[in-house]
Amino acid sequence: MLLIRETFDLIDRALAEDQVAHDVTTDTLITSGQQGAVVLVARAEGVLAGLPVAGAVFARVDPSLRLEALAEDGSPVSPGQHLARIEGAVAGMLRAERTALNFLQRMSGVATETARYVRAVEGLPARVLDTRKTLPGHRHLDKYAVRMGGGRNHRQNLSDGILIKDNHIAAARAQGLSLADTVRNAVERAPMALKVEVEVESLEEALEALDAGAHILLLDNMTPDDMRQIVGMARGRALTEASGGIDLETVRAVAETGVDFISSGALTHSTRALDISMELQA
Amino acid sequence: MLLIRETFDLIDRALAEDQVAHDVTTDTLITSGQQGAVVLVARAEGVLAGLPVAGAVFARVDPSLRLEALAEDGSPVSPGQHLARIEGAVAGMLRAERTALNFLQRMSGVATETARYVRAVEGLPARVLDTRKTLPGHRHLDKYAVRMGGGRNHRQNLSDGILIKDNHIAAARAQGLSLADTVRNAVERAPMALKVEVEVESLEEALEALDAGAHILLLDNMTPDDMRQIVGMARGRALTEASGGIDLETVRAVAETGVDFISSGALTHSTRALDISMELQA
Amino acid sequence: MLLIRETFDLIDRALAEDQVAHDVTTDTLITSGQQGAVVLVARAEGVLAGLPVAGAVFARVDPSLRLEALAEDGSPVSPGQHLARIEGAVAGMLRAERTALNFLQRMSGVATETARYVRAVEGLPARVLDTRKTLPGHRHLDKYAVRMGGGRNHRQNLSDGILIKDNHIAAARAQGLSLADTVRNAVERAPMALKVEVEVESLEEALEALDAGAHILLLDNMTPDDMRQIVGMARGRALTEASGGIDLETVRAVAETGVDFISSGALTHSTRALDISMELQA
Amino acid sequence: MLLIRETFDLIDRALAEDQVAHDVTTDTLITSGQQGAVVLVARAEGVLAGLPVAGAVFARVDPSLRLEALAEDGSPVSPGQHLARIEGAVAGMLRAERTALNFLQRMSGVATETARYVRAVEGLPARVLDTRKTLPGHRHLDKYAVRMGGGRNHRQNLSDGILIKDNHIAAARAQGLSLADTVRNAVERAPMALKVEVEVESLEEALEALDAGAHILLLDNMTPDDMRQIVGMARGRALTEASGGIDLETVRAVAETGVDFISSGALTHSTRALDISMELQA
Amino acid sequence: MLLIRETFDLIDRALAEDQVAHDVTTDTLITSGQQGAVVLVARAEGVLAGLPVAGAVFARVDPSLRLEALAEDGSPVSPGQHLARIEGAVAGMLRAERTALNFLQRMSGVATETARYVRAVEGLPARVLDTRKTLPGHRHLDKYAVRMGGGRNHRQNLSDGILIKDNHIAAARAQGLSLADTVRNAVERAPMALKVEVEVESLEEALEALDAGAHILLLDNMTPDDMRQIVGMARGRALTEASGGIDLETVRAVAETGVDFISSGALTHSTRALDISMELQA
Amino acid sequence: MLLIRETFDLIDRALAEDQVAHDVTTDTLITSGQQGAVVLVARAEGVLAGLPVAGAVFARVDPSLRLEALAEDGSPVSPGQHLARIEGAVAGMLRAERTALNFLQRMSGVATETARYVRAVEGLPARVLDTRKTLPGHRHLDKYAVRMGGGRNHRQNLSDGILIKDNHIAAARAQGLSLADTVRNAVERAPMALKVEVEVESLEEALEALDAGAHILLLDNMTPDDMRQIVGMARGRALTEASGGIDLETVRAVAETGVDFISSGALTHSTRALDISMELQA
Repeated sequence: MLLIRETFDLIDRALAEDQVAHDVTTDTLITSGQQGAVVLVARAEGVLAGLPVAGAVFARVDPSLRLEALAEDGSPVSPGQHLARIEGAVAGMLRAERTALNFLQRMSGVATETARYVRAVEGLPARVLDTRKTLPGHRHLDKYAVRMGGGRNHRQNLSDGILIKDNHIAAARAQGLSLADTVRNAVERAPMALKVEVEVESLEEALEALDAGAHILLLDNMTPDDMRQIVGMARGRALTEASGGIDLETVRAVAETGVDFISSGALTHSTRALDISMELQA
Repeated sequence: MLLIRETFDLIDRALAEDQVAHDVTTDTLITSGQQGAVVLVARAEGVLAGLPVAGAVFARVDPSLRLEALAEDGSPVSPGQHLARIEGAVAGMLRAERTALNFLQRMSGVATETARYVRAVEGLPARVLDTRKTLPGHRHLDKYAVRMGGGRNHRQNLSDGILIKDNHIAAARAQGLSLADTVRNAVERAPMALKVEVEVESLEEALEALDAGAHILLLDNMTPDDMRQIVGMARGRALTEASGGIDLETVRAVAETGVDFISSGALTHSTRALDISMELQA
Repeated sequence: MLLIRETFDLIDRALAEDQVAHDVTTDTLITSGQQGAVVLVARAEGVLAGLPVAGAVFARVDPSLRLEALAEDGSPVSPGQHLARIEGAVAGMLRAERTALNFLQRMSGVATETARYVRAVEGLPARVLDTRKTLPGHRHLDKYAVRMGGGRNHRQNLSDGILIKDNHIAAARAQGLSLADTVRNAVERAPMALKVEVEVESLEEALEALDAGAHILLLDNMTPDDMRQIVGMARGRALTEASGGIDLETVRAVAETGVDFISSGALTHSTRALDISMELQA
Repeated sequence: MLLIRETFDLIDRALAEDQVAHDVTTDTLITSGQQGAVVLVARAEGVLAGLPVAGAVFARVDPSLRLEALAEDGSPVSPGQHLARIEGAVAGMLRAERTALNFLQRMSGVATETARYVRAVEGLPARVLDTRKTLPGHRHLDKYAVRMGGGRNHRQNLSDGILIKDNHIAAARAQGLSLADTVRNAVERAPMALKVEVEVESLEEALEALDAGAHILLLDNMTPDDMRQIVGMARGRALTEASGGIDLETVRAVAETGVDFISSGALTHSTRALDISMELQA
Repeated sequence: MLLIRETFDLIDRALAEDQVAHDVTTDTLITSGQQGAVVLVARAEGVLAGLPVAGAVFARVDPSLRLEALAEDGSPVSPGQHLARIEGAVAGMLRAERTALNFLQRMSGVATETARYVRAVEGLPARVLDTRKTLPGHRHLDKYAVRMGGGRNHRQNLSDGILIKDNHIAAARAQGLSLADTVRNAVERAPMALKVEVEVESLEEALEALDAGAHILLLDNMTPDDMRQIVGMARGRALTEASGGIDLETVRAVAETGVDFISSGALTHSTRALDISMELQA
Repeated sequence: MLLIRETFDLIDRALAEDQVAHDVTTDTLITSGQQGAVVLVARAEGVLAGLPVAGAVFARVDPSLRLEALAEDGSPVSPGQHLARIEGAVAGMLRAERTALNFLQRMSGVATETARYVRAVEGLPARVLDTRKTLPGHRHLDKYAVRMGGGRNHRQNLSDGILIKDNHIAAARAQGLSLADTVRNAVERAPMALKVEVEVESLEEALEALDAGAHILLLDNMTPDDMRQIVGMARGRALTEASGGIDLETVRAVAETGVDFISSGALTHSTRALDISMELQA
């Protein structure tokens, strides 16, 4: 479910903000009748994501443009590799070029970065998760790209999981409630289909949350040693997720603590675009 | 003109994709009556951008939440600095937190990176420009953030400038037209209010474009030496813009060639978010 | 979170489909200057829900119309009781009357019916749940009305809970998977924050699902005896929900089996409107 | 004109509120390649309405799903009868199931109830009319369903008929105008293409309205005797419509008074859904 | 009901198509802090219409801009007359100027032309009507402007009146139905609140339509003599409307035939804008 | 790029405001099965524009209706000429008729008027330009129609050209800036791709603007003699555009001054519709 209404809607707004219907350069220089072909070419190593979105961009600008995929989302690509070929009216391709590449480079960038983390923890049980630190309006594209890079998705949004974070705990404390009280309230009152995850910052908090019935512990910015102890303590009682300032250097050490999940906002909030260009075929 | 309809529209979509109206954690734990205050705190050095957008996010979730700015867009910030304070119903702040920060961290990231380029060319005439390699749906926010970082904006979209790029030239060549023909066609046929900019890849092309009447030369991926020669050649006849693979290491050398403008897609397509957090006040 | 964007959007569509801006009767007979007051009056016994929505309808038609609530959502009402009073331009009230009442009567009807079920199981642990059998476009209003009637909400939508129903099981069987296989797949692959609920139709299936790790059993159209056995079997291992053809006659007997939840589509798909009228004050 | 823009729009919002693009159960368990067939099966006696809408729901979720109708809107159905068959990707059918049935059950419920009233007055001249007491956002679907049940439509909205109701009369009285004044004003000032209908509550009012030129009399909550007298009085001068608290028990007695029309809000505001289910074919 | 949702929607689109948020001239030259005042000045004789719409345009661009009306919609204006005054930020006024004037000049043009027709038939019973030949998307603004010019509105749209035109009659004839058949069908089957109007082209057709029960006759492109005869024939039985090629030269002669209504598409499809300008006050 | 999203959007709103889905006349009289053909026929001399838009209207009402063009946009038409033929369901054609013609008559009216101006300056270098005095919501249709009539387009909107008009100059003067200061500011600060056009009202101002670096001079309401002098003065330094109160009588005299462009708001703000009708074929 990548090409859903939200995707087409975002494409339309991207095309509108680029004013493709008023591309004065193309209008001035290219006759509507000129036919041709272009290829999308990788300029760096990475993992591909978003080709169907790029295809939808071209088709939205000119319904007769059809993108033929030469690689698949989720597969590794290398510099010079042809990713797709589009035939048809040259004017439409030129209008659509920048918007299509903006989507494709962003999504492939996310997939590429995710794949680096996944590779870094290879052989260990920890699975790499994204966060809600996605680009406004791009949530489902970002989460799709993470999956293409081999990662798994955490919550889609605020409705599909209880995650009690530092500010919730602080707010409850201001009402005189302990961490244990808060966790118990959540377990009892939450929609029945949802588990309860709690952010903890120490061994003591972890134990308090476990005893209060938490289903998942979010270990925020902890040392590997602390994580290892909590993982042992939680085994069979709750799942564990590590997060906070984990980067490619440190991710394997974190995974070796035995946590079930490692989440990183950087997958989506600090991504380098993958370099991809469009070339007119002679 | 930052808080225009497109901005509110994007905020609404971002809030919808995060389902703030169905925040099960907040619904379960926080009573609607609880009042409090939070601050937005910088966690790294950078340049601030997007505070009015963050404020609009809070107000959209709960119209009684008003953000009091403690710093201004465009100003430098340092770790620990309080950027804004919001008072009111705690539940609304918690619902809005992630979306507000997603905007603010992204925009401040763009401003911060831009400021690095601007600082790198300080004292030289070259001005730092963005490109159309912005995030789909975020064009005007990205361009605003570039300005907050001290950069200038290139074209907003395809309608407000003639820019003849490699693919346009190739397409015209396929019709038997030389670079000079293409430039002349553009000068003659373009909307009268628009200048004509042409991408050139060699001294010869630069000369051909100049002679055909180009108003601006886009020097793509050239050596500083070639740039310097073209800049000399163009003086008094056309403006010059350097682009292509320019990074923080190389940007000063490029600026020293005397080009009028230096543009970089990386300002907006490969940005690291600036770390900013929200903290409930005791 | 009742008056969210979706609500205003639905109100606008309702007003548009009734063409309130072209109310030829009011346009023909009522001068725009005439002031007055109306009351909303209950004509039957029930539970009130939707007064803020009715208020929003009046305000949308004429921003100067302000509804003063004389009763609260969730409270019982009796025939002749004044529920709200609105003062201002008579023309606006007349334009808005039907749309405001259509919302209010529907929502109060849902709350009233829910309250009957809740009363019927009083003193027993079972909680009354709604389903996704809501009116297209009215999901969050229907679910709000259920809460006002004292019921609890099941899933909001397909994203916030795993519920393996008969057709999922049949589809998996067609692929050679047993019920146990399917449950195990769900437990393993589902988003980590979500529990797994399974529809079962016999003791054997219930046992199979329990052993495969189901967190909740949906007991569909079972005899009270079978339910009672499964409830005993599941205690401490999984929650239980009864559904299917349960009405006001039978609901107490079902609750006496000890199930945790009882869900009924009829709360929202077969509701009688609560009779409420608008009366101009002399 | 059933599948108009408003219908597709409502379908899209219904699918969005059910988050069909994020059906975690289907995503977790059903592979996108699995093909199959389902049938829609009536579980109770009634009149069918809305099959094209249900078909549009399936097609909207997966354009390759095509619904083959096995019965026609407006025809009677009986328990166990197959109403439609859909072939294609199983995942799409499962995502769409609830939304498609929510439309179909509601619309068939309205048609079924209408047909009961129509049958009750068989052989008499009175025609059964709906009202504007429809579900917000469903006006044209409700009115279509009434037609499928053999009823006729009253006004679509406030723009296509003058109907002077109790509150209009009261508002005019507050300005010193008699009922006759009000009717005369309406006849003179109304758009030339529209007739004038007036709600009357007694023989005296009926006579006053007739003499003032009313084209239609709305007899609200009257005894059959009074209705009969007014019908006689109006013959050849105006049409008559009975309304107010008429149910299946009393409707024939009302029709026997000779009124031209009988309208009932209950057709649309208090409808029981017709039980219809979707079954995967082995 | 002028400033309804459709109006704001059209204003937003008009502002978007003019890209007021990217007014490069104003952005380049006017500081956001500069305050000032402007007046709207009539440059020709005419009738004013649309001042509230112009006001809404300014407020939409900058909510702090408030238009003070110096004349009222529907009143005559003369060259040099100040119609309105706006104070506030100069930048916003300059951005909004063209869009506000485009609405105001158009609407005042329609009102001015209508007033000419109304004046031409002064003292005669005939009332001047508009048609559905309005500008796409401007229906309700055009019809409002006609009223401001002293005209009356014909149908708002296809739903609020039966008007059997030449093509309907031809289509029915192709099915073997006479004009009388068609009229009788309409009278019997039409929604009960609507009258039946029929286009006739001769005395014979007029008689046929009358006898079949038509409530209104549309006399299309007839000689005054024929009209006069039909008017006499229809007296007490039906209303009459003249249309087709009637201009300011001929309209009085047409009115003298005694027709009840005269309609002209030219009021809205061939309007000269009324010249109005905006001037910055020293 | 005529049939862009804005066009379809405008068509949808035009169809909605005409309530084509509730065409009571067609619903009452025409069976959905009746097939037939219609032609669109010119009733006056002119230039055709908008046939694809008319075709889109028919297709939007009934996707099976396909318009076969018998003439091309931009070509001259004469009375009685068949412009297009449509075959299919008669009901759909009747519903769409008015909306399709409203677009077609308006656009052809604009093209026709433009062609008159173009013909009037034949043989002279001046090119005929439109302005931003277009109908709200119709900007791109109006500008397309101007091109079909042989004219050229001035700015699409406020973003794609610097045009310093009287009010900008007055606002700058209020800040103590001379015309020369203002022009210099614009040249220096404007987006690099845009030329600077300045409205001047005298020879002195023209000279001042030229010396300050203006690229284009807008000569507003000047005598031919003044224009001729300025044209001479500007040759080789700037382009010239004449505007203000130029009509068909005077346009040739203006063109003979040697100006590069002549712009007229009347092309789009005061257009007579071209008479075109739809006729059912026997």
